[in-house]
Amino acid sequence: MKNFLLVLTCWLGLVSAWAQTPAVEQWKRFETSWRGPTAGNPFTDVWLKATFTNGRKSVKVKGFYDGNGLYKVRFMPTEPGSWTFVTESNVKALQKKSGQFTCKAPTNENHGPVRVRDTYYFQYSDGKPYHPFGTTAYAWTHQPQALEEQTLTALKNSGFNKIRMCVFPKFYAHVINEPPFYPYERKGTKNDFSRFNPAFFEHLEKRVDDLAALGIEADLIIFHPYDKGHWGFDSMGTENDLRYIEYLTARLSSFQNVWWSLANEFDYIKTKTRGVWDTYSKAVVANDPYRHLCSIHNGSVYYDYWKPEFTHVSIQNGSVIEEAGRAVLLRDVYNKPVVYDEVCYEGNVPQRWGQLSGEEMTHAFWQGIMAGTYITHGETYMDPNQVIFWAKGGPLKGTSPARIAFLRKLVEAAPRPYELADPWKDHQTAVADSSHYLIYLGKSIQPEWEFSLPKKSGPAAGKSFQVELIDTWDMTITPLSETFVIDKPEAYRIFDTKRKKIRLPLKPYLALRITEIAAK
Amino acid sequence: MKNFLLVLTCWLGLVSAWAQTPAVEQWKRFETSWRGPTAGNPFTDVWLKATFTNGRKSVKVKGFYDGNGLYKVRFMPTEPGSWTFVTESNVKALQKKSGQFTCKAPTNENHGPVRVRDTYYFQYSDGKPYHPFGTTAYAWTHQPQALEEQTLTALKNSGFNKIRMCVFPKFYAHVINEPPFYPYERKGTKNDFSRFNPAFFEHLEKRVDDLAALGIEADLIIFHPYDKGHWGFDSMGTENDLRYIEYLTARLSSFQNVWWSLANEFDYIKTKTRGVWDTYSKAVVANDPYRHLCSIHNGSVYYDYWKPEFTHVSIQNGSVIEEAGRAVLLRDVYNKPVVYDEVCYEGNVPQRWGQLSGEEMTHAFWQGIMAGTYITHGETYMDPNQVIFWAKGGPLKGTSPARIAFLRKLVEAAPRPYELADPWKDHQTAVADSSHYLIYLGKSIQPEWEFSLPKKSGPAAGKSFQVELIDTWDMTITPLSETFVIDKPEAYRIFDTKRKKIRLPLKPYLALRITEIAAK
Repeated sequence: MKNFLLVLTCWLGLVSAWAQTPAVEQWKRFETSWRGPTAGNPFTDVWLKATFTNGRKSVKVKGFYDGNGLYKVRFMPTEPGSWTFVTESNVKALQKKSGQFTCKAPTNENHGPVRVRDTYYFQYSDGKPYHPFGTTAYAWTHQPQALEEQTLTALKNSGFNKIRMCVFPKFYAHVINEPPFYPYERKGTKNDFSRFNPAFFEHLEKRVDDLAALGIEADLIIFHPYDKGHWGFDSMGTENDLRYIEYLTARLSSFQNVWWSLANEFDYIKTKTRGVWDTYSKAVVANDPYRHLCSIHNGSVYYDYWKPEFTHVSIQNGSVIEEAGRAVLLRDVYNKPVVYDEVCYEGNVPQRWGQLSGEEMTHAFWQGIMAGTYITHGETYMDPNQVIFWAKGGPLKGTSPARIAFLRKLVEAAPRPYELADPWKDHQTAVADSSHYLIYLGKSIQPEWEFSLPKKSGPAAGKSFQVELIDTWDMTITPLSETFVIDKPEAYRIFDTKRKKIRLPLKPYLALRITEIAAK
Repeated sequence: MKNFLLVLTCWLGLVSAWAQTPAVEQWKRFETSWRGPTAGNPFTDVWLKATFTNGRKSVKVKGFYDGNGLYKVRFMPTEPGSWTFVTESNVKALQKKSGQFTCKAPTNENHGPVRVRDTYYFQYSDGKPYHPFGTTAYAWTHQPQALEEQTLTALKNSGFNKIRMCVFPKFYAHVINEPPFYPYERKGTKNDFSRFNPAFFEHLEKRVDDLAALGIEADLIIFHPYDKGHWGFDSMGTENDLRYIEYLTARLSSFQNVWWSLANEFDYIKTKTRGVWDTYSKAVVANDPYRHLCSIHNGSVYYDYWKPEFTHVSIQNGSVIEEAGRAVLLRDVYNKPVVYDEVCYEGNVPQRWGQLSGEEMTHAFWQGIMAGTYITHGETYMDPNQVIFWAKGGPLKGTSPARIAFLRKLVEAAPRPYELADPWKDHQTAVADSSHYLIYLGKSIQPEWEFSLPKKSGPAAGKSFQVELIDTWDMTITPLSETFVIDKPEAYRIFDTKRKKIRLPLKPYLALRITEIAAK
């Protein structure tokens, strides 16, 4: 009877604990807060840390001051089950605070943070492949609310699943408006770099969550050169820069869809040397217990992307994606995923970096995908109200986004990521596996195409294949009635046993998807 | 009188010392030797070092056992004047040996070892620019004497000023003959990796000196994968490998025209990991007090060329030189001189890497030069006697060497090294400085060319230019009678004030040299 009562008590205790314990989905955000001191400067005087554990794994996160006497800790659980935590602090009110929560299985479109996969590619934490088809709206979170909502609508209706965006507001041609929120407390036009403005970060966080709801990764640009003394966020000095990194990562590391981009055009920020960037990269990594994807983006000069802080390469180069033979070269150098995060933009501004046609922008995406790399979109159409997507967001006006979305579907339908099948010789033929090829004819207009694949890791003789004609501009996929039978290899190529050819429409931007017909 | 006698005595002493002191030209080789122990294994039991100094500079070099009881020390003086030296050793007979010599000013074609210049280029130690126009004859020093002499004759009559060559013999298709010398003592077919064969190295040294006499740099390949168990030189184990590096560098570091290539196709040598290559690279650098140019050459996978041991990039990639837009990409990555040391070969072997036409090989050199990079030649024409230049040397049969020599003269005549004037937009226009451009039209056949240069760092309005039409295949330079006057820039280009055009012959492989007409 005594034992029975003990068991019953325990059981009731568990039920009660269960009922009281908050529940958070795996890779979603647990947040808790306490009241603490408001005197002095809470941003610099107080530190707060919490250690979360599920018994097997222990993760230390930094808390942050959220204003109004409130101190917060956020945490992204990476394993389901019961988690507990306890705090440390230099002030009594925040010491030894403890609690627990339950991490539930992820639901619906919650696949966790994106990670590197197979050297050159990406996948979500649950193993679902992720192919970045990104766009760019550097200052979209620094606009009036209605415009920000327009941006979200445009993104929702596009195929983009990543966006490059600056934490700090941007002061540059076509974007000279003051932002609704400033990152620091201000007196007139003077920032107090020792006091953050929590409302600024709350707003940013809301927008990052808005993107998450649309399945879009937020490639957050921590520093950028588009300030030029207007606000001074590009020249705050090392101490303030590092405090900013610590605050930003404490607030946003627990957001599953965050990527860190140390800078846009780092080499155009003349106040920081390479040594400083190394320090900042290390600081971001040290302060992000989840090790989100992290890179740095260049102007004219590349960064040292082989350094271990960088999970992938984020390069600006407008010429590299004119053909897959160029795009593929940097994969071999870095042995990391290569994202060409600026390859000129579709639009009609006077600057040549913003003058691509929709065809050229789409072509760039195709060349990148063939090469096993990724491209980021941007749009710079002149606008009477100065609402240019690349800067402020708003509606998308260009012709490439629909074609990019079409390509994304093709890529996601392939059994594996594409890459050039014979990268030193054939820059038109990408392979997923030996049962699935994609040939992109690009600008070449030719009346026919002879069935031909690289011998390298190619299909065995006797296998049958079907071909679909893809019009990358009209976004049509037309299965051809002919089937093709693989002959024995001849030198470095594989042909159909009857050397069959396909008639092609006399148009540019065609592709062929070539897939094995499963034996019956 | 006493003073006079003292002065006279001193003077006589100096004269006598002068008469007895050997003299060596700056950057040439000082060598001295002593008798020492022959018992045991002199290669492993005895060590010998010497410290050379001229009072300002002190250089420690390793000596080596040269067989027959003779121990040698070699030294390359890098400053003129009086040098002294003293030895250290673990055997008494070689301890505290000292001496002196005089380093004289260099004469004639002695310009010293080649160094890196201006990030992407090279120069000799005396400041004379050096542009590598290399060829390849991996096993030329492992052939019968008559054939080796033929190779030297062929090189003498060519425009090549660098040659890639293996220290070890090569066992591969088209080169399966046993070498006249083996690097190690052998019993039957078994090597004693603890005992070198000095005759092998003497022979190699003679050939390196023969090359020096022709003004040719010896790009010495320390390891290679073309052994496959035949001799075992690719799988001697770390201890023997490091002893080999020490012996090779002790013998050959004092040769001014030596470059170190850690390996050919390092990734095809399956016995060595990247960690091992790092160790070997560091060993080469540590054992070469003169810091000769040093790199490592890849098969399919690149090495980490950013590591400080490597002075330049030595890459195999057959696709990268099909156009300057590709070739230029790796310069920006590595910030070092890029030498594409294998870009397929001119010839007709069944393998596609040896099937370039002379036109294609020449075209590769042009694309490389336009991009501010360098290309290495190789020749693989089938031969009834299996004498293929790429392997054994012998006569050159191809059509590209003469055109490559022609290009070399053009490059050497320019005021500075060429590089793309606007590398993200224009892959046809190279600039030396704003008074000197080279436009290469490559395979494109066009009836006319409108005078047009990139605006970037271009000449000022009002300057006058002349144009020479270069037929890169026929090797002709034809000055055109028209002169051109620079107009104000228009967007990103510069044109002639009257938009003058030039008629072109309907041929491929044309170039235009565009030079400023000096104001009178």
